[in-house]
Amino acid sequence: MENKSFTETKVSSEVIFEGHIVKLERDVVTLPNGKETTREVIRHKGAACVVPLMDDYKVVVVRQFRYPFGKVLTEIPAGKMDEGEEPHECALRELKEETGIIPEKLVYIGDLYPSPAYDDEVIHMYIAMDLKFVEPKLDADEFLEVVQMPYQDLKRDVIIGEICDAKTQAAFLKTDYMLFHQKKK
Amino acid sequence: MENKSFTETKVSSEVIFEGHIVKLERDVVTLPNGKETTREVIRHKGAACVVPLMDDYKVVVVRQFRYPFGKVLTEIPAGKMDEGEEPHECALRELKEETGIIPEKLVYIGDLYPSPAYDDEVIHMYIAMDLKFVEPKLDADEFLEVVQMPYQDLKRDVIIGEICDAKTQAAFLKTDYMLFHQKKK
Repeated sequence: MENKSFTETKVSSEVIFEGHIVKLERDVVTLPNGKETTREVIRHKGAACVVPLMDDYKVVVVRQFRYPFGKVLTEIPAGKMDEGEEPHECALRELKEETGIIPEKLVYIGDLYPSPAYDDEVIHMYIAMDLKFVEPKLDADEFLEVVQMPYQDLKRDVIIGEICDAKTQAAFLKTDYMLFHQKKK
Repeated sequence: MENKSFTETKVSSEVIFEGHIVKLERDVVTLPNGKETTREVIRHKGAACVVPLMDDYKVVVVRQFRYPFGKVLTEIPAGKMDEGEEPHECALRELKEETGIIPEKLVYIGDLYPSPAYDDEVIHMYIAMDLKFVEPKLDADEFLEVVQMPYQDLKRDVIIGEICDAKTQAAFLKTDYMLFHQKKK
């Protein structure tokens, strides 16, 4: 089956809402069978996330209240891209702001699409190594706790599903594969 | 730092939009420092996804056009939960509808929060094994291609970032860990 036979073509587009985080569009599209339908799409500026790996194999994570879930979640440092910012610049900025870390090495490990059915967000994933620590610079309304988590504890929490955040699961498991399983079949 | 010190308290909530997929709310909340701010939240019904693993170590994936990205993506079978449906029922229904697979074994491997900063979606993840194949039953307006992908090809595409879908990355890498790396330190 050719890719083009799946293609949906935009007929019209309407911005329903534009907020601080979320821009919501409702588009009318033509389906491959010629019928029209609507697609609700969240447009997002993109983001970057970082697995900060210390020399003694601790991973620096952040704990913050996530309003949609009404609870504190453990995640790797991450944040939205500013206007005109490159993904690696965003990764370095967010890492420094949230945790005070300045890494010597930043390695790109791929992109993540959190919800491709209805959201165009792309999270650019990195590993940071050879870390120096300075004072974090949080926004006035940002509340988070920085935790140095032993590697095997983080791995356990990802595997047993104690940590559910998608970018943390994907970026950590990719990191683990790259560090320890690369040469195994 | 106590968890409760992070807590944001809802002051008011307004439904901005309620569509087929996306329900968008804008809530006013009180921050830990007493200041008020707004939170934009996508409310989602939840979903399930499945890694269907064949006896010969092929994984059954689906390729479909994803409108937010304007291209065909490769993903594991998945879908939204119907009203009153349990996660494992959703997993079995979507797997059968999209691929025609009826599994003998369905193993829960944890939850995934795709975008916890602004979206309450939870994807319940499963591995399916001992697969029987019947005829898929797609919705009239659903277009997808079912592909039996060799395990190592899928692993390569996840690791090199050719496959970016978050649920596919997380569920496949967890599956891989459980199958092959469980006993290694």
